[in-house]
Amino acid sequence: MSTEIRLAGEGGQGLIKAGFILGESATVFDKKNAVQTSSYGVEARGGESSSDIIISDGKIYFPRVRHLDILLSFTQITADKYVNILKDSGKLFIDDDFVRVPKNYDGEVFSFPYIRTARSKFNLVIIANIIALSSIAYATNVVSIEALRKAVLKNAPEKAKDMNLEAIDIGISFCKQ
Amino acid sequence: MSTEIRLAGEGGQGLIKAGFILGESATVFDKKNAVQTSSYGVEARGGESSSDIIISDGKIYFPRVRHLDILLSFTQITADKYVNILKDSGKLFIDDDFVRVPKNYDGEVFSFPYIRTARSKFNLVIIANIIALSSIAYATNVVSIEALRKAVLKNAPEKAKDMNLEAIDIGISFCKQ
Repeated sequence: MSTEIRLAGEGGQGLIKAGFILGESATVFDKKNAVQTSSYGVEARGGESSSDIIISDGKIYFPRVRHLDILLSFTQITADKYVNILKDSGKLFIDDDFVRVPKNYDGEVFSFPYIRTARSKFNLVIIANIIALSSIAYATNVVSIEALRKAVLKNAPEKAKDMNLEAIDIGISFCKQ
Repeated sequence: MSTEIRLAGEGGQGLIKAGFILGESATVFDKKNAVQTSSYGVEARGGESSSDIIISDGKIYFPRVRHLDILLSFTQITADKYVNILKDSGKLFIDDDFVRVPKNYDGEVFSFPYIRTARSKFNLVIIANIIALSSIAYATNVVSIEALRKAVLKNAPEKAKDMNLEAIDIGISFCKQ
């Protein structure tokens, strides 16, 4: 049983880092296997930047995503572009302010104000990536919240650890509402 | 013109993190494009763990490595396994204590005591990953030392920044000897 995830958006949104953290959550802490591919395309120029992760209890035979179980989109263009490869049973996570539900998509949607909350709560837009990961983990169980917490702490600077833990709590609270 | 790199070894050697840092060096700081794929295979169980990076000035059309320009191996098994896809003009970087030059390989070899030096200098084996990245950057110019320095600092905890900078200097000094 494997799960295919794409975190899509543009450079500077922390989605490559998020993919790395999700991979560590799954492997180092949840003891599963994973393949993670990050495309920086034109990240440095503010272009599309996305990270794919396949997580499996068993061996991963084909290392590229084909049919997504989970799509996170921080930009409209990536939501419109990749919703086509989201399974019927898939879950779409989008930023509530920056992304509308793509036309003709009638699957499950989680629309949360990731970026607005990161800005208003922490004055740091990039932490939206951790809030989003947390909402994904909580809503889908693709990784355990406990594993995510450990991986996030492992990768956060000392002085930002509390903020990162709070970001995880916010992601969970979005789902509980 | 694109460059294909594989960093190969086993779990706990920091090679996935190294791939992430190399990707950031190339894209965020050297303003190139990159695709990076990390396979955690059975990382959590101490098995093979490797990271591939393709770096290009232009668009990257095929996102998987085929013929390596650079191979770093921290284990014998990965050196023996992947040297076959190293180009004739490629460069092989191996740990001087843990890896022998694979049989029948007569290309260019850089054999340095990455792991031993990380242990003796810093009492921290995992920093061998940064020493290795630095030797690769210096010997091949695949990323600039300046970009590597910035990416390493961006990803190091505050209290480990000096150690990481020293690790970079050691990697350079290996190549100069």
